[in-house]
Amino acid sequence: MNDYSVVGKRVPSVDGKPKVTGEAMFTVDIQLPGMLCGKVLRSPYPHAKILNINTDKAERLQGVQAVLTGADLPNKKFGLFTNLPDTHDQTALAIDKVRYIGDEVAAVAATDEWIAEEALDLISVEYEELPPIFDPHEAMKPSAPLIHENVENNISRTARFHHGDVDKAFKEASYVREDMFATQPVTHCAFEVHAAVAHWEQSGKITLWSSTQSPFKTAETLSLYLGLPLNKIRVTKQFVGSGFGGKCDGLFPIDAIATLLSKKAEHPVKIVNTREEEFCTTRKRHPYTISLKTGVKKDGTLLAMDIKAVADSGAYNSWGPAIIGRAGVQSFMGYRLPNIRYEGHHVYTNKSTSGAMRGWGNLQMRFSADSQMDMIAEELGIDPLEIRMINAHHTDDIMPNKAWISSCAMSECLRRVSDSEGWKKRWSKMPHNRGLGAGIWAYVSSARQMSHDATAAIIKVFEDGTATLLTGATDIGQGSNTTLAQIAAEELGINIEDITVVSGDTEITPFDFGTYSSRVTYISGNAVKAAAQDVNRQLFAFVAEKLEADLSNLIAKDGRIHVKRSSKKGMTFSEAVKGCLYSKEFHVLGKGLYSTPTVMVNQETYEGHSSPAYGYGADIAEVDVDRETGQVSVIRLKGAHDCGQAINPMQAEGQLEGSACQGLGQSLYEDLLEEKGQVMNPSFLEYKVPTALDMPVIENDLVEQPDPGGPYGAKGMSEGSIIAISPAIANAVYNAVGVRIMDLPITPEKILKFLKGGKE
Amino acid sequence: MNDYSVVGKRVPSVDGKPKVTGEAMFTVDIQLPGMLCGKVLRSPYPHAKILNINTDKAERLQGVQAVLTGADLPNKKFGLFTNLPDTHDQTALAIDKVRYIGDEVAAVAATDEWIAEEALDLISVEYEELPPIFDPHEAMKPSAPLIHENVENNISRTARFHHGDVDKAFKEASYVREDMFATQPVTHCAFEVHAAVAHWEQSGKITLWSSTQSPFKTAETLSLYLGLPLNKIRVTKQFVGSGFGGKCDGLFPIDAIATLLSKKAEHPVKIVNTREEEFCTTRKRHPYTISLKTGVKKDGTLLAMDIKAVADSGAYNSWGPAIIGRAGVQSFMGYRLPNIRYEGHHVYTNKSTSGAMRGWGNLQMRFSADSQMDMIAEELGIDPLEIRMINAHHTDDIMPNKAWISSCAMSECLRRVSDSEGWKKRWSKMPHNRGLGAGIWAYVSSARQMSHDATAAIIKVFEDGTATLLTGATDIGQGSNTTLAQIAAEELGINIEDITVVSGDTEITPFDFGTYSSRVTYISGNAVKAAAQDVNRQLFAFVAEKLEADLSNLIAKDGRIHVKRSSKKGMTFSEAVKGCLYSKEFHVLGKGLYSTPTVMVNQETYEGHSSPAYGYGADIAEVDVDRETGQVSVIRLKGAHDCGQAINPMQAEGQLEGSACQGLGQSLYEDLLEEKGQVMNPSFLEYKVPTALDMPVIENDLVEQPDPGGPYGAKGMSEGSIIAISPAIANAVYNAVGVRIMDLPITPEKILKFLKGGKE
Repeated sequence: MNDYSVVGKRVPSVDGKPKVTGEAMFTVDIQLPGMLCGKVLRSPYPHAKILNINTDKAERLQGVQAVLTGADLPNKKFGLFTNLPDTHDQTALAIDKVRYIGDEVAAVAATDEWIAEEALDLISVEYEELPPIFDPHEAMKPSAPLIHENVENNISRTARFHHGDVDKAFKEASYVREDMFATQPVTHCAFEVHAAVAHWEQSGKITLWSSTQSPFKTAETLSLYLGLPLNKIRVTKQFVGSGFGGKCDGLFPIDAIATLLSKKAEHPVKIVNTREEEFCTTRKRHPYTISLKTGVKKDGTLLAMDIKAVADSGAYNSWGPAIIGRAGVQSFMGYRLPNIRYEGHHVYTNKSTSGAMRGWGNLQMRFSADSQMDMIAEELGIDPLEIRMINAHHTDDIMPNKAWISSCAMSECLRRVSDSEGWKKRWSKMPHNRGLGAGIWAYVSSARQMSHDATAAIIKVFEDGTATLLTGATDIGQGSNTTLAQIAAEELGINIEDITVVSGDTEITPFDFGTYSSRVTYISGNAVKAAAQDVNRQLFAFVAEKLEADLSNLIAKDGRIHVKRSSKKGMTFSEAVKGCLYSKEFHVLGKGLYSTPTVMVNQETYEGHSSPAYGYGADIAEVDVDRETGQVSVIRLKGAHDCGQAINPMQAEGQLEGSACQGLGQSLYEDLLEEKGQVMNPSFLEYKVPTALDMPVIENDLVEQPDPGGPYGAKGMSEGSIIAISPAIANAVYNAVGVRIMDLPITPEKILKFLKGGKE
Repeated sequence: MNDYSVVGKRVPSVDGKPKVTGEAMFTVDIQLPGMLCGKVLRSPYPHAKILNINTDKAERLQGVQAVLTGADLPNKKFGLFTNLPDTHDQTALAIDKVRYIGDEVAAVAATDEWIAEEALDLISVEYEELPPIFDPHEAMKPSAPLIHENVENNISRTARFHHGDVDKAFKEASYVREDMFATQPVTHCAFEVHAAVAHWEQSGKITLWSSTQSPFKTAETLSLYLGLPLNKIRVTKQFVGSGFGGKCDGLFPIDAIATLLSKKAEHPVKIVNTREEEFCTTRKRHPYTISLKTGVKKDGTLLAMDIKAVADSGAYNSWGPAIIGRAGVQSFMGYRLPNIRYEGHHVYTNKSTSGAMRGWGNLQMRFSADSQMDMIAEELGIDPLEIRMINAHHTDDIMPNKAWISSCAMSECLRRVSDSEGWKKRWSKMPHNRGLGAGIWAYVSSARQMSHDATAAIIKVFEDGTATLLTGATDIGQGSNTTLAQIAAEELGINIEDITVVSGDTEITPFDFGTYSSRVTYISGNAVKAAAQDVNRQLFAFVAEKLEADLSNLIAKDGRIHVKRSSKKGMTFSEAVKGCLYSKEFHVLGKGLYSTPTVMVNQETYEGHSSPAYGYGADIAEVDVDRETGQVSVIRLKGAHDCGQAINPMQAEGQLEGSACQGLGQSLYEDLLEEKGQVMNPSFLEYKVPTALDMPVIENDLVEQPDPGGPYGAKGMSEGSIIAISPAIANAVYNAVGVRIMDLPITPEKILKFLKGGKE
C-alpha cells in the first residue's frame, strides 16, 4: 500500500463550489465593453453553388456593425493539426459552394441579438442547387458528384495497413467468420453549446475566449489560418461545460467568424450557438460500417482479422482522417492479435461533419469485434468471458504495430467482473428474458499520432506556503484541475486547498495540447509532478543547508519538509519558502517539462508507439428485454477498470459512470436522424439521451496496478466504459432473447422484427 | 561599443498602440456581470470620536446592496510591509475615531452611482470632536493630543544613527555651518485616479483589480488583513495610469472596502476615486523640516553632517517610518561623507497621509544639502561644480553605512554638464537676473530595506518562434513592459515584436514586488535575462546535438541560433523551438530567478547594503527671475545621467523629462494647501502642475558606464532628475538675484519679500 496523503483520495472537485453556486462563468457569460452579438447565416441546401450574396440591406440596418462573407476571408483552409497531408478543407464561411444544410454562408455583428437576426433575414443569397449525396457507399462510386472538387471519389483518406501474414493465418485458423456491423451517428450533447468571444484590438492583438478542449490547438490553427504570429493570439477559456471530443477541433467556424467580425466591426463579438445549431452544425460521432473477418484457433485464440471500414465524414474532415486510421489500430487494442489487415475509407457526404467523440474510432470497432467475439465463442462453445481471458493483453506485450504495453491488468479486470457477478454460474442459466453480456475497452493515454506531445507546468509558491499551478491542461468538467492539484499537493506535501489552478490559456500557461485521448492525467500530470519536484529541489537545498541535513534524506509531507523518519528535524513548507525568498542564495519557482517517450505513427505503415500507456477495462451488462414491446432495460452495469492508479477515485468513478451513461445512449437511444441532409431531431425533445431515470445501477471496481511511467502510476481512463457498453448490451440482449443486433442503436423495432421471425 | 540588436535601441513602447487608440483598459473600464458601484462616506472632522453610526435608512434605500461600517471589519490594522515594528495603523474604515478630514467612515454598494451617493447622505454619524493638531512640531510636545493612542508624542518612528565620529570631525573642520530647510506637501497627480474592483466569490476566491504599482504587495497585505491564504487572493491590474509612488502602499482603504463590500453584497464592486478624493485622501510627499549642520575642510571636502529632520506623516504611517530612515541614509548618497549623525522623527498630524513619492526622502534631503553646498562653496570661494566634483562618489567607494558602490559615473556627469553648458565661463558672469544652478541626484536600484527582494520571470516560447514573457513587474506607464521585452528579445536573438509581455498578476506571473525604488530594470531585468538564458540553454542543447556543434560556441542572434562567426551553421530560432517540442528528449520553457546580492538594513544601526547599484546624475538649471513680479522662469535644464546602460534611450529620456517636469512643479508651483486639515486646492484648477507651456528646453546626456551586476549593465534612473531639480533651481535663483530660498516652493511672493529687503 502506498501512503499518499492527497493522491488516491476522494477529494471534492476544486471547481465544485463556483459551479454549484452558479458563479462559474462560461463563455456565454462574458461581458465586454462595446461587445456585439454575432449571428451566422447558414445554407438551406445540402449541396449548392453560391452564385451571389447581397448584403447591402443588412449593412444598412441600424445597429449592424459588420457583415462578413466568404469574400472577407483569408485565402486558406483550416483543419486538423496532424502529420497527415491535405486534410485542411474548411473555411470560416463557405466560398463558392455549400456542402451541407447548415454550412456557414455569411455572418453579422450587431448591437443585439434581435438586430443580428433581422440582418440575417436581409442577406439574400442566390444558390444553384447541386446533386447531393448522403450515403458514403454511394459517394465512393465514380458516378457520384464530388463534394470537394480535389478529392477523388469523395474519399478524403484511406487508411490501409497490415501487420503479420493475414492470409496465412486465415488458412491456419480453425474457424473463420465474417460479419457486417454498423453504427449510427450520435452527437456530444455538451451542456454548454459552442460559443466564442473574440476581441481583435486595433493594436493587432487578438483575444479569443472559446469553449474549447484545447486552447493551444485553437491558437495554432487560428495563427496558421490568419497568418499571424502566436504571440499576437491569445486563446483562453472560461469554465467549459464539457466537450466529449466535440470541442477539440483546432478551430470551429464560429471561432474564426467571431474573430474576423471583431476585426471588421472594431469591437468584441460574441457568438453563441443555439441548441439547434449545436445539433445540426457541430460535430457528431462517425457512423461506420465495418466488415469484420476473423480467424481463430479451436480454443478461441485470435489469429487474424481482415477489416474493411467505411466512415461517413459528412461535409468536412475534422478529425476523421486521423480517426479512420486509429479505428484500424484499435482493432488490436485489448486482445492479442498477431495478424491484421485493415482498409478504412473516410468519405465525404452532404451532411453535417463527423469528428472526434469519446472513444473515437474505438467504439465502433469494439462494438463490432466484441459482438463478433461472442458469436465466435458461441460457435466454439466457449464461455464469453473465457474467450476474452484467453486473448487478453498482458503487461509487456508488443502489439503488431510495434507499440509496447507498459502495464495491463485486463485479465484482472475480467476476473473481477466475472467473480463479482457470479458469471460462471449465472450466464448460461439466466431467467426468462434476462441476459448478461460482456464487453471490454482498451484505450490510449494520449496519442502522439497527431503531432508533438510535449507539455510543461509551472508552480508558483507564495510565501505563506500556498501555490498557484499553471498548466495548459484544460478542465472541461472531467476534473483535471482537481487531479493535477492533487498531484502537486502530494508532491509538495501540502493540502489541496493550498493550490490554485490556472489552466488552458495560451498566453499565460505553459504549452499543453489540452483535453483529448485520455491524455491529461498522464501527460500533464507528469509535467505537474516534475514542476513540484523542481520546487522541492530548491526548497530542499535551502532546508538542507539550514538544518545541516543530507539533501537526499529530506521529504515533503504534511506541510513540512523534514528529515525522513525524523519529522521534528525540519521546518514548515511555508518557513522553507520564506527562507528561500528572504535569502539571496535561494529562490523558488517550479518548472516541469514532460515529453512522452512515444514514437510518431508512420502514416503509411501505421507502425508506431503513439501512447505511453493504455487503460483497460471490462463491463458486464445485465438486461431485461420486454418481448411484447422489444424494449431493453439495462438492470445493472458492473465494470472493472485498470487505471494504473486512480488519482481521485471519486472522479474516476464519475468519469466511468458518465461514460457508461453515454454508452447507454449510444447503445439504445441516440441517433442523429438526417433525412436528405436535414437533421430531423435537433433538440432534446426529439434526440433522446439517457436521463437519471434511465440509468441502471452501476458498480465499478478500480483495478490499481501502477503504470511505470504515469504520475504515481496513473493512466488515462476517462473515455473508458463507453467503448465496452455497446457490445456488452448487444451481447446481453442476445443472451436474453437470442436476438443479435449488429447495427446500433438496439431499438425495440429491431428487436421486435427479429422476435417476430426472420432477420432484422 | 556593444553590438546589441534590441537593447540600447529607441524601441517604441510595446503598449503604445492600445494607449493611443484608446483601447487600453484601465480599472475604471472594467465591466462585470452584476457589478455594483461602491462609494465611501468620509469624515468632515480632522479629529473626532465616532459615537454612533446609523445606516438603517441607507440600507432600506432601493438599489443599495450592502452598507459597511467599522463594525464589519477584521479586528486588525494594516500598513507597510517591512521589517519595522508596529507601523500598522490603518483600518479600511475608521473604528471609534477619525483622524483627518476625509477619513473613511462608512461605505455602500449600490446598483448605480447616484443611488450610492444618495445612500451616503442617508447614513447619520454622531461625532464628538477632539482637539486636532496640524503642526508636527506642536504634535511632538507632551501637551499635544494623541492621534493614535498608543503612540507617544505622536512620533510613530524615530530613525537615529551615526557613522564615524561626528563631533571629532566638526572639531577638525575648517568651516561649519548650520541651516534650516523645509519642503512642502505635493501630491502625485497620477492621470488615473485610484480605483478598485473586487469580486469575492462565494467559493471564497477573491479577485481584486487595483490601480497599483505592486499587485504582490497588495495581495500580501490583503492576505494578512483578511487572514486568508495568498492562493485565494488574486490581485491583478489593467493598464495603470501612472503612480509615482502614490500607488505602492500595500493596501489602500478602497481596495479593502471594495473587497469587503463585495463579500457582503455577494456581487463584484467597483470603487473609483473622484479627483477631489484623489487630492484629499490619497498620499502626498512628506513635508520635511531639516536642520543641517555641515563641516568641511578648507578645500570644500565634506567632513561631517549632523542632521535633524521632522517629517509630517499626516493621519497614518503609510511608508513614512521607512522614508524617515531612508532620508537620513540618502544624505550621503552622491557625495563622500565620512561622518554622519542623523535623527529623524516621523510625526502624526490630523491631515491627509503622507507616503511614498518619486525620490522618497531623498528629494527633501538633497534640496537641503545641495542648497547648503552652494552656500558653503560661496563662503569658501569654490566653484559650485568644483565642490561637487571634489566630493563626488566613485566606483568601489564604500559608504559610511557599509553599502558599496558597484559603479558610479558622478564625476563624468558633472564634467558633461559643466562642459556642455560652458559653466566655468558663464556661471560667474551671468547676465542681469539670469542664473545657473546645479544639483545632483543619486538613487538606489531597488531597496532591500523593506523586505525580501527576490524576483523571477518565465518565458514561454511558441513553436513559431514568438514568445510570452511572464513577469511580476508592473508597468505603470514607466515602460517596463518595453524594456523587459527588449532584454528578452536581445538575449533570445529575436525581434521585440515577437514577445508579448504579461505582467503584474499575483495569480499568473512570478513573484515580483513591483514598481518602486527604481528597481524594475535592474531586478526584474536580471530575472528576465536569466529566463531567456534558460530558454537558450535548452535550445542550444538541441541545436548542438543536431548540428554536431560545440554547445559553448553557439549564439542566438537575428532570429537564428548558430555557431559563432559562422552564421550559416545554424537554424532559425523557430526551427530550434519546433525541434525541441517535436523531440522527446528536449523541451523548452524558460525560468529565471534573481535575488539581489544585498544586505538588509539593520533598523537600529541603519547599516546595510540595500541596493545592488546606484544611479547618479547632475542637472543644471538656467533661470530668469523677474524682479518686478518675483516670477522664476526656467529657461533650460541640462542633465547628464549615469544609468549604466540605457536599455531604451528614448524611454530613459522620457523618464528624465517627466521627472524634471515633476521637479519643476515641486520647485516652483505645487503645494497641497491644508487649512485646519482641509485641503483647499483639491482640483487641477487650483493645484498647479506644470503644463507643456511651462516646460523649459530639456537636454539630457545618458552616461553609459555599465554596472557589473545590472542586465547589460543597466541601473535604475527613473526617479532621477526630480531630486536634482529643486536645488538646481534654488541655486540658480540665488545666482540670478542673490535670493536664497530655503523652503519650497520658490514662489514669487517669497522672492519679492527677499528682494524688498530682509529675509523671507
